Amino acid sequence: MPHPRFALTPVAMTGPRYTRLIDSLPATVPFVGPEEHERLAGRRFTARLGANENGFGPSPRAISAMAAAAGDAWKYGDSTSFDLRTAIAAHHDVAVENVLVGEGIDGLLGYLCRLMIEPGDPVVTSEGAYPTFNYHVAGFGGVLHKVPYAGDHEDPHALIAKAAEVGAKLVYIANPDNPMGTHHPRETIEAMIDAVPDGTLMVLDEAYVEFADDGTEARIAADDPRVIRMRTFSKAHGLAGARVGYALAAPGLIAAFDKIRIISACAASLRQARWPRCRTRRGRPTCVSSWQAHATGSTRSRARTG
Amino acid sequence: MPHPRFALTPVAMTGPRYTRLIDSLPATVPFVGPEEHERLAGRRFTARLGANENGFGPSPRAISAMAAAAGDAWKYGDSTSFDLRTAIAAHHDVAVENVLVGEGIDGLLGYLCRLMIEPGDPVVTSEGAYPTFNYHVAGFGGVLHKVPYAGDHEDPHALIAKAAEVGAKLVYIANPDNPMGTHHPRETIEAMIDAVPDGTLMVLDEAYVEFADDGTEARIAADDPRVIRMRTFSKAHGLAGARVGYALAAPGLIAAFDKIRIISACAASLRQARWPRCRTRRGRPTCVSSWQAHATGSTRSRARTG
Repeated sequence: MPHPRFALTPVAMTGPRYTRLIDSLPATVPFVGPEEHERLAGRRFTARLGANENGFGPSPRAISAMAAAAGDAWKYGDSTSFDLRTAIAAHHDVAVENVLVGEGIDGLLGYLCRLMIEPGDPVVTSEGAYPTFNYHVAGFGGVLHKVPYAGDHEDPHALIAKAAEVGAKLVYIANPDNPMGTHHPRETIEAMIDAVPDGTLMVLDEAYVEFADDGTEARIAADDPRVIRMRTFSKAHGLAGARVGYALAAPGLIAAFDKIRIISACAASLRQARWPRCRTRRGRPTCVSSWQAHATGSTRSRARTG
Repeated sequence: MPHPRFALTPVAMTGPRYTRLIDSLPATVPFVGPEEHERLAGRRFTARLGANENGFGPSPRAISAMAAAAGDAWKYGDSTSFDLRTAIAAHHDVAVENVLVGEGIDGLLGYLCRLMIEPGDPVVTSEGAYPTFNYHVAGFGGVLHKVPYAGDHEDPHALIAKAAEVGAKLVYIANPDNPMGTHHPRETIEAMIDAVPDGTLMVLDEAYVEFADDGTEARIAADDPRVIRMRTFSKAHGLAGARVGYALAAPGLIAAFDKIRIISACAASLRQARWPRCRTRRGRPTCVSSWQAHATGSTRSRARTG
């Protein structure tokens, strides 16, 4: 259906030109979900164990609030997640400016890598630690330096020493750790922060901290520029499908995410919160979540198309 | 709370080291939502007009399906969005491999820019066109070349000529256009695709095409490597808060997104679909959506933390 007013030279159908970095990345998909495995195998799984989902499910109050909010889905959510950030700030006794809400810790880790990592930049983690962090580091061209576990624990001393040795921009540790399930006492994490090398940011992934024993959650000043903490509603709160995580960090770092984030992707805001109590009891989590999430999309504003 | 085993040199609290690109980006937030305006002004808006939300709301069947699925929010969604992609593929009579589902067109535009744009790469759009596309281009260091509107329409000829002149990696057009609301007949868009310069990818934003007159939706071969089409459930389907958009393109381009996307952020999969009929009638959209979306998060799989 050529249009007569277009009279350019014939076009070779070469397709898109990717960046050099993208051309260098593997084509393999790093995440194969249980549904895809089931389709490939032609049969259902007996149990979903791969993603540490919370089989207790969300709080009945959260379910009720999500159901009640379904009819509001025509609205874009508040791009600032103001109500949820305010509630999180009150819970942690920090300022709203210390809190960033995003599409799960995975999304936040991706943005963090984009903020920090240029091709060739060094990053330190543990051999066998959370692979999605590595996926994002590689996706921005970072060079991963991995240290071994020590006694089934991530090794804070080896991580810090390696960070200092290579001049890491980021050093990652999860407390409690995934996949090992081990944890360090808060004093060890606090001492690790005190030892973070100049110019390195420590990424403290606390996705499972609500399940941990008292004395695990590190005490960190809200404005400490050496560390960013990651939390999520996916685990203790049983809201993995809602994709709501948050970061706690110094205001300057929190504000930097606004330079790049997709102000659209987080599907929850907050109606009312009483913070849940979650503690292990004889090795099993007991969790009472009273979050009243509702699915109205934390998102953007201006006249938009999509 | 220093830990005696850490004995490194004193640390200057310099904070994170951003990339050069991030340092160069403005600190201003490009999106200020109606809720934020209301908070700043201290009073409520009479109407929400800024984001082209669908005041008719979602289909009652979609609301019902979302409400029914709220209790499943403990599960991560299918990272491949298999059911929804299958339904979209059937609707458009293309292969599943031609379809990518993501967190709204905004999210997909961000990923597309990340795939294509290195600092200094040229990109073409219209002066006054969709600002979020520009935000993403700038966020990856691209250089925007803008052509003027012609007669209240985006100007396909000027866009193509500019793309050829500067060697653009991407050339953007929306049909129908936002914010102007004007549109070109499909023959014009098809001729524009035929004139896309070698090495340029055309981004055809069709967020509003369900509202347009017959003869607006371009006929494009599914595997045409010169164009990627963007669609959304935010507008005609009244599901802006659910953040579900999709792209239609050649399989190689669709697959490339898997190198980088946050396999987590899209909060919908599909239970049952009868494709909605949406047409303008005397200038007003009449829309019957029978999508049965449910809020279970299209997401990832491996043992994960957040």
